[in-house]
Amino acid sequence: MADIAKKMASNQKQIAISEFFEKNKHFLGFDSLPRSIITAVKESVDNSLDACEEARILPDIKVKITKADTKKDILELTTEDNGPGIPQKSIEKVFGQLLFGSRFHAIRQSRGQQGIGITGVVMYSQLTTGKPTHVLSKIAEEPTAVSVKIGLDTRKNKAVKSEQTRIIWENDDLTLKEHGVRVTTKMKGKYQRGRQSVFQYLRMTSIVNPHAEITFVDPDGETYHWPRVTEKLPRKVDAIKPHPHGIELGQLQRMCRESSDSRLSVFLRQNFSGVSMRAAKELCEAAELDVSTKPKSMKPDDIRAMLEAFQGERVVGGKVVKLLSPPTNCLSPIEEMLIKKGLSKTIDSKFISTMTRAPTVSHGNPFQVEVGLIFGDGMAADKPVEVLRFANRVPLMYQQGGCLLTKSIESVDWRQYGLDQAGGRGVPKGPAAILVHLASTNVQFTSEAKEALSDNEIVFEETRKAMLEMGRGLRKHLEKKKKMAKTREKFELINDILPAIAEKSASILERPVPDLAGSITKIMSAVICNESTTWNKDTKQTDVSITLFNYTSRARSYSILVNWPEKSDGKMIGNERGGRKEAMGIWGWKIETLEPGEKAHIEYSLANLEKGDWTETDVFFRGSQDVIGASKLDEKMLEEIRRQEQILVEADKEMPADKEAQPTFDSGVVEGDTGQTTLFGGDV
Amino acid sequence: MADIAKKMASNQKQIAISEFFEKNKHFLGFDSLPRSIITAVKESVDNSLDACEEARILPDIKVKITKADTKKDILELTTEDNGPGIPQKSIEKVFGQLLFGSRFHAIRQSRGQQGIGITGVVMYSQLTTGKPTHVLSKIAEEPTAVSVKIGLDTRKNKAVKSEQTRIIWENDDLTLKEHGVRVTTKMKGKYQRGRQSVFQYLRMTSIVNPHAEITFVDPDGETYHWPRVTEKLPRKVDAIKPHPHGIELGQLQRMCRESSDSRLSVFLRQNFSGVSMRAAKELCEAAELDVSTKPKSMKPDDIRAMLEAFQGERVVGGKVVKLLSPPTNCLSPIEEMLIKKGLSKTIDSKFISTMTRAPTVSHGNPFQVEVGLIFGDGMAADKPVEVLRFANRVPLMYQQGGCLLTKSIESVDWRQYGLDQAGGRGVPKGPAAILVHLASTNVQFTSEAKEALSDNEIVFEETRKAMLEMGRGLRKHLEKKKKMAKTREKFELINDILPAIAEKSASILERPVPDLAGSITKIMSAVICNESTTWNKDTKQTDVSITLFNYTSRARSYSILVNWPEKSDGKMIGNERGGRKEAMGIWGWKIETLEPGEKAHIEYSLANLEKGDWTETDVFFRGSQDVIGASKLDEKMLEEIRRQEQILVEADKEMPADKEAQPTFDSGVVEGDTGQTTLFGGDV
Repeated sequence: MADIAKKMASNQKQIAISEFFEKNKHFLGFDSLPRSIITAVKESVDNSLDACEEARILPDIKVKITKADTKKDILELTTEDNGPGIPQKSIEKVFGQLLFGSRFHAIRQSRGQQGIGITGVVMYSQLTTGKPTHVLSKIAEEPTAVSVKIGLDTRKNKAVKSEQTRIIWENDDLTLKEHGVRVTTKMKGKYQRGRQSVFQYLRMTSIVNPHAEITFVDPDGETYHWPRVTEKLPRKVDAIKPHPHGIELGQLQRMCRESSDSRLSVFLRQNFSGVSMRAAKELCEAAELDVSTKPKSMKPDDIRAMLEAFQGERVVGGKVVKLLSPPTNCLSPIEEMLIKKGLSKTIDSKFISTMTRAPTVSHGNPFQVEVGLIFGDGMAADKPVEVLRFANRVPLMYQQGGCLLTKSIESVDWRQYGLDQAGGRGVPKGPAAILVHLASTNVQFTSEAKEALSDNEIVFEETRKAMLEMGRGLRKHLEKKKKMAKTREKFELINDILPAIAEKSASILERPVPDLAGSITKIMSAVICNESTTWNKDTKQTDVSITLFNYTSRARSYSILVNWPEKSDGKMIGNERGGRKEAMGIWGWKIETLEPGEKAHIEYSLANLEKGDWTETDVFFRGSQDVIGASKLDEKMLEEIRRQEQILVEADKEMPADKEAQPTFDSGVVEGDTGQTTLFGGDV
Repeated sequence: MADIAKKMASNQKQIAISEFFEKNKHFLGFDSLPRSIITAVKESVDNSLDACEEARILPDIKVKITKADTKKDILELTTEDNGPGIPQKSIEKVFGQLLFGSRFHAIRQSRGQQGIGITGVVMYSQLTTGKPTHVLSKIAEEPTAVSVKIGLDTRKNKAVKSEQTRIIWENDDLTLKEHGVRVTTKMKGKYQRGRQSVFQYLRMTSIVNPHAEITFVDPDGETYHWPRVTEKLPRKVDAIKPHPHGIELGQLQRMCRESSDSRLSVFLRQNFSGVSMRAAKELCEAAELDVSTKPKSMKPDDIRAMLEAFQGERVVGGKVVKLLSPPTNCLSPIEEMLIKKGLSKTIDSKFISTMTRAPTVSHGNPFQVEVGLIFGDGMAADKPVEVLRFANRVPLMYQQGGCLLTKSIESVDWRQYGLDQAGGRGVPKGPAAILVHLASTNVQFTSEAKEALSDNEIVFEETRKAMLEMGRGLRKHLEKKKKMAKTREKFELINDILPAIAEKSASILERPVPDLAGSITKIMSAVICNESTTWNKDTKQTDVSITLFNYTSRARSYSILVNWPEKSDGKMIGNERGGRKEAMGIWGWKIETLEPGEKAHIEYSLANLEKGDWTETDVFFRGSQDVIGASKLDEKMLEEIRRQEQILVEADKEMPADKEAQPTFDSGVVEGDTGQTTLFGGDV
């Protein structure tokens, strides 16, 4: 007993982070052979996409998997990009040292963050095959590329370099490669097809990275190609400073301790997002500290007081110090049109609804939720809908059940939106797929393998809201479809069959064909709107045609409004009827008088779009008599759209040149929705 | 473009492991306020239990939570143990440095492994309150205790020590504390009740650590006490060497490189489990390497050849080199009786079935599965059964859905065992709780927070098998209950009502009471067994009474057998009928002739048990006529029990003194089951 404590203590030692992850390789996504190869592809492709995005290059990525030894489940993976390349002296650290990276301390949206991913691949390769990973890298300003083999000394978390040389790197067509990286690595793995596969991972990656060109050669030598569908790079994201609402006491202590600022007010202004000069002064006042206090010399109680001011627990003149929201230029959403494009490229179906929520903030971290729903034939009606989860443009393929995004889908009662769902909880059933994307400066995963998001109330609520709004869109669509089908039936009866009968009867009776207008009006007694949106493959335009029939006995007067993809650079052409812009993405026409039995036509085409971008037009009306086939315009929502537009325009004007620029909208407005389904509003 | 690559590279830097986990504190279980306090209690209690177990001390653990600041959700947590204590110079590393510990490289069962847990608590405390953690530690050979405050320099992963001093540590009763550790820490947290709470965590901990005494004072000052229910410490576990079946190539390369052995055969023998001298020679032969090869000088191809020999891909004389299983003395299961004890202390119910599977091996790692099922009134019948998951005696409270153990429960069709289950998949419904415990040298969690086990096919199958066997036990119990209820009804009719009617009729008719034996025999035409097992609170014994009625028209002859807790140190007393031991835990009596209308009694008591330890006795019979209320003995299973017993006895004899001692049973036998439900066997 006597010396047991000392004996036990003598066995303790420091463990290197690389030893830790070698033993716990399943934390990094290397827990089974089929999954290990997916993880390796994912880490490599994520790095390529991040590097291209940062260097503002349209990515061109090639992935190739071959069987190195069929008997023993050894695969060789090669990935190649056209990114900026990695300078020679950085290669060993990027590939051979865990927790080495550039994005850990930066607050902005990126795929990789921890500096673990690709080194994990190198480590797993070495562990399972004993082989180092071959890296070929060329940067633009050097004529030759570096070729080097990287292994890992896991006891020390250091790279082991071998066979380093410089070579001339030629493309397949023998031209010189300008810049890029190629990684070749051998590992234990099993290539599989199906829902959890390299193929599926790349397919989903292409949905949320429509600017990327991806080519994949599988072990059977078959080539798959996902072409680039937009030349537009994702919005450039800037790193931001931490926001006072997301700061913990220990973090603030450290920031003060490490500060060389001489004045507290300057320190607050320069080290945080959302703190104006005035707010900095007010924070000092609330914390009862002098603005000239030197941060480094602040006592624990001072720092606690400042944190309380940050959190609104200390006030000035009875008021909480008002802080601006953090800027959202650190986020890069995919945006509605591109989600639509991606979805319709991959899943062939009729109805697609998407929704990009405005950015918002959780614990000082800006984030933004985007959702998409695709519904229609060709998908299984009796199975759970396919859930496509993404975080910062990276597909999440495992742990669906444990993921915040899935939980938010499960929390919605989809039965009221036209999908089957046992007990109104859980993943709904039906011929649909639901896409959900979280863009955030701080995506909280449940583990290093980055496969599921951990619980966060604010993100959950925001995602749920997006789902609810999208659900309303789906219900509207299904109701409209049903109504239109009925109307069309009646319509055909009246316009085709009745006249035919009349004609036939007249010819048999040898009497003149009677005027049916009166009878038809009596039967229908309604104003009917007929809309068609079709892709014209000759002109490469989307043709929209709207016809309004007055089958009532009185003259009618309406404004007809439509939504159209103005935000996504669509162009409206051939609109001979004129009309005017009512708000961003909303166009309207006045139809002064429509006599009984008369019809009015509206026709135009949408240019600058591709097939599948725009497949359905929502038609709204202003007027006293209901229009079958169109929705009554919700004026309040229209106002809201106009107001948000105005705010954004003003924010643009005010945006100063420096990096601290922040849109001034407050959260009340931010939470509104600028998506296409908004006009449905009200009690639908 | 030109210098983008270099610019990007210049932003890269090394991240300290402490910075990594501070940012990703949710990986460690600090993702919400209610959970953070549970995590802190868990890490501290796990450490205490591990330390006590290693030092062979019966643990006495006190946990106290108070509200330090009700307004701001700040809690103060104090935990105290009677463990060996931590020597002064080790304290700062244990509490203030991540990835520092003694159990990472050791292959044996322990709660903590990574050296992350308690330092994570110190880090979280500091981050959320800015305060260091106070540690008081006394080891037996020093007269005074160390008192020190520990913080963390997260940029460097180093402890920050303050206010270090030595004090006299007195217990509450003013005696001197002999040895132990007390930790006091303030943190953001929220104390809650319910299924996920500190209370529930400690309650579950007491189930699987029946040797621990645990006291808990909650923020309202209420005291809860879970007393020690056994003085028996868990089996001492020894660390073992890695088994060749669990080695990866990279690992073998490193072992060879770091070896100072001069001969390959010695290297194999001394660094691996399961390699006898003969096996070492055969491995060399299979790998076509000389036994005198120096491991350090082995070439990559040599090492690969050796790995292939390990994995049976290279053979000698057409045969795979036979390796012994790794020793299982590195495991410490809870064992059936203690699980029962724990369960019945906590959940008050009638039927409890437990099953400790024999140890087995996955990828060279020994592991063992134990399951328990409690069924009966007092639990909700229309809700999913409560699932109690444990790994190495630590309760798992989060991520139930994503856990291997849950998945194995869900994979069983419980409908055939008498529980409700929609579609025969998922967690069943019914008045039951299922306990499952995995003891392993290498528990693979899905993340550092150690809340769910990641997928592993072998462990899954083993757990599933245990569930199936336990399910059969449950079905048997339910069937028996139903049958007995029917028999009892008939029995009462015959023994109470018929004679009463006869007597009444006789008295009315003024005629003698007729002899009913013949009629009763005709009606019943069966041999009936009536068993009762009851706790006698006066004698503190469990009284068992078995009566056999022959209600047939012929004389019968039987052997009657029962199961009894021999393995758990139960004692059978007052057994006047004698009989003999048939196998471990199985006792039998011969009943030579039982005439028609006669009955035979067997009575005995079980001493050395506590209330709830033994609530039901299974009765078996040998004989040609069926016995209602008893099961026909499966002779093959009895043989199997005897055989395993023999093997274990021999293994004990053969066990050499050195650490490499290994039981010699092979997996075929190991997979058998020595639990009480075995005799059900066959086609039940």
